[in-house]
Amino acid sequence: MHFLKKYYLIAPGPTPVPHDVLIEGAKETIHHRTPQFLEIMKEAMEGAKYLFQTQGDVFAFVSSGTGAMEAAVANLLSPGDKAIVVVAGKFGERWMEILKAFGANVVDISLEWGEAVSPERIKEELEKHPDAKAVFTTHSETSTGTVIDLEGIAKVVKDSNAVLVTDAVSSLLAEPLKMDEWGVDVVVSGSQKGVMLPPGLGFIAIRGEKAWKLIENSKSPRYYFNLLEYRKKFPDNPYTPAVNHMYMLNKAVELIKEEGIEKVWERHALLGEATRRGAKALGLELFSKRPGNVVTAIKVPEGVDGNKITKIMRDKYGVTIAGGQAHLKGKIIRVAHLGYMGPFDTITAFSALELTLKELGYKFELGASLKAIQEYFSENM
Amino acid sequence: MHFLKKYYLIAPGPTPVPHDVLIEGAKETIHHRTPQFLEIMKEAMEGAKYLFQTQGDVFAFVSSGTGAMEAAVANLLSPGDKAIVVVAGKFGERWMEILKAFGANVVDISLEWGEAVSPERIKEELEKHPDAKAVFTTHSETSTGTVIDLEGIAKVVKDSNAVLVTDAVSSLLAEPLKMDEWGVDVVVSGSQKGVMLPPGLGFIAIRGEKAWKLIENSKSPRYYFNLLEYRKKFPDNPYTPAVNHMYMLNKAVELIKEEGIEKVWERHALLGEATRRGAKALGLELFSKRPGNVVTAIKVPEGVDGNKITKIMRDKYGVTIAGGQAHLKGKIIRVAHLGYMGPFDTITAFSALELTLKELGYKFELGASLKAIQEYFSENM
Repeated sequence: MHFLKKYYLIAPGPTPVPHDVLIEGAKETIHHRTPQFLEIMKEAMEGAKYLFQTQGDVFAFVSSGTGAMEAAVANLLSPGDKAIVVVAGKFGERWMEILKAFGANVVDISLEWGEAVSPERIKEELEKHPDAKAVFTTHSETSTGTVIDLEGIAKVVKDSNAVLVTDAVSSLLAEPLKMDEWGVDVVVSGSQKGVMLPPGLGFIAIRGEKAWKLIENSKSPRYYFNLLEYRKKFPDNPYTPAVNHMYMLNKAVELIKEEGIEKVWERHALLGEATRRGAKALGLELFSKRPGNVVTAIKVPEGVDGNKITKIMRDKYGVTIAGGQAHLKGKIIRVAHLGYMGPFDTITAFSALELTLKELGYKFELGASLKAIQEYFSENM
Repeated sequence: MHFLKKYYLIAPGPTPVPHDVLIEGAKETIHHRTPQFLEIMKEAMEGAKYLFQTQGDVFAFVSSGTGAMEAAVANLLSPGDKAIVVVAGKFGERWMEILKAFGANVVDISLEWGEAVSPERIKEELEKHPDAKAVFTTHSETSTGTVIDLEGIAKVVKDSNAVLVTDAVSSLLAEPLKMDEWGVDVVVSGSQKGVMLPPGLGFIAIRGEKAWKLIENSKSPRYYFNLLEYRKKFPDNPYTPAVNHMYMLNKAVELIKEEGIEKVWERHALLGEATRRGAKALGLELFSKRPGNVVTAIKVPEGVDGNKITKIMRDKYGVTIAGGQAHLKGKIIRVAHLGYMGPFDTITAFSALELTLKELGYKFELGASLKAIQEYFSENM
């Protein structure tokens, strides 16, 4: 029968952008080198500090999150510098690739995809490598739905010579992250996830002398991402900033502040748990050893083609979730609970997932996941 | 007396964005790894080829124009490679800074700001340095309003071992640029000038084996701007693209194609000449030795504070033009005729300029520039 196929974005980035934010982006583009725009930039960068829970420095590049990752590597390290890197998924691999591209001397903590590095393991490596300048971690590994104990890791790194760098591209606002309180030195993120903006901004937040000293001494070739230039010109930009994205950022921060960051974390936790319960109610297994509240990776049951799940959900029902990446292609699906998503987005995801799984011959009781999610919501709302 | 202070952007970038383009940017953000978005990307990149007048490869970074400049340097050269660079203003200096940051062996053609390098001078340097891998030029030097004879220079570079790279950040669509016909190897540009988009995209266009061979052999550290990755994934992106900017790009290209690129060049020439005539009618001198149709740099007359001109125009009348940069601060003003601007924007600029100059005590006949511009328009429209 015919139905209206609306578009539902339930993937871990880009995430849905609130209409009130999009419409800010449609406001008149003004000149960036004016007192008027500098006020907008100041407000935006003050707002960004709230998102990172830091009184340190936050800068916004016109770039994707990967650009901000490159900025961290190219500014903190010189060629040959030793760096510890945790690789347990696609975005850990990205750290590794960037570190290699910039000639770092890499100490590799490679884990099975889906595992989370422990503070103890980091401590061990730091003791073996007291000359390491930095530890590169992935707060939320989007490819596996795994979140690490960043607070615990920060405690361990604080007592070493190294700075702690974390990729919070997908975790910012979805997982508690208290940069100053925990003592995380450098955090990178992007605009198209928890911040609820279209792609276009890469963020880097830096706190404390330990990180700034490395940045001041770095000999890596860099220009566009050279943080010393950004610091010198702040809140002005060395290069043309994404003017309309700044309007949107201010609106998004206003919405987030109205809600309160603890509440934002809380609602991500609610949808994360609802998603995990939905999966279990269908007899499905979670992929991650330490699942977080950004995105839930669910193993595709035997006999079902995982690529077909995402394709049918998208093309027949208009519901975009994510599949697996690299060797997990077809083996997991990833349902997000990130950014501008509410309880009925999770319900929608599981409604479409159930219809799709049934079509693909998987055996389960129709409505089972929706019932489990309803029960959880009913107890917690 | 009270008046309505509307906002007029008559600066060389960011430039005004048509409402029809802005509103495209407010459309729902969709997921980038979907067949639906790949169609949008394909259309956008086909459209971009038209803007550059090339059948070569065009890529869009999430970055400012400076990011695309860094991409050119980091992809074409290895550390120690010889490169010829023309420096006759702030953006020539930017090439120089990037080349130095990436360890190039630089042959420096430094000219007075406002001068244009000649094809003969380039030929001379190429003969002295047959081992040069690339010649870096600035098609339109926005800081001085100067446009070089790129077609003539391309003829000269074609017979050498070097590739010709040009910064067309401000010139694209404002000045004729026929990449394939002229034989320009690499062109970089941005979204916030002639293309009529908000800042957010950096473009690089590459034609021919000569350039691609250098790119394939480059040993410069690079990751975010690594063109080999962009080529491999095309029209998909290695990193999250600026989804909403792609909607806007498609709309802008639609508008530009409807008009026809020759007509776009023609209207920039019309406003460029009108602006030069307006300046002369006020007894003002042009700064550039070879003024182009992107922006007109006008010398501030003696006894007048140039910084006050731009400030009064902006804060009292709502008209944003540009002042001078670096050692030209306060000494020139720059009136743009770039992108989404029509005859009455030029009239507005001179109306506000006249009122401001009068307030600052400069002697001239009120209305003189408007009359001169009207006469020129009347003859040519």
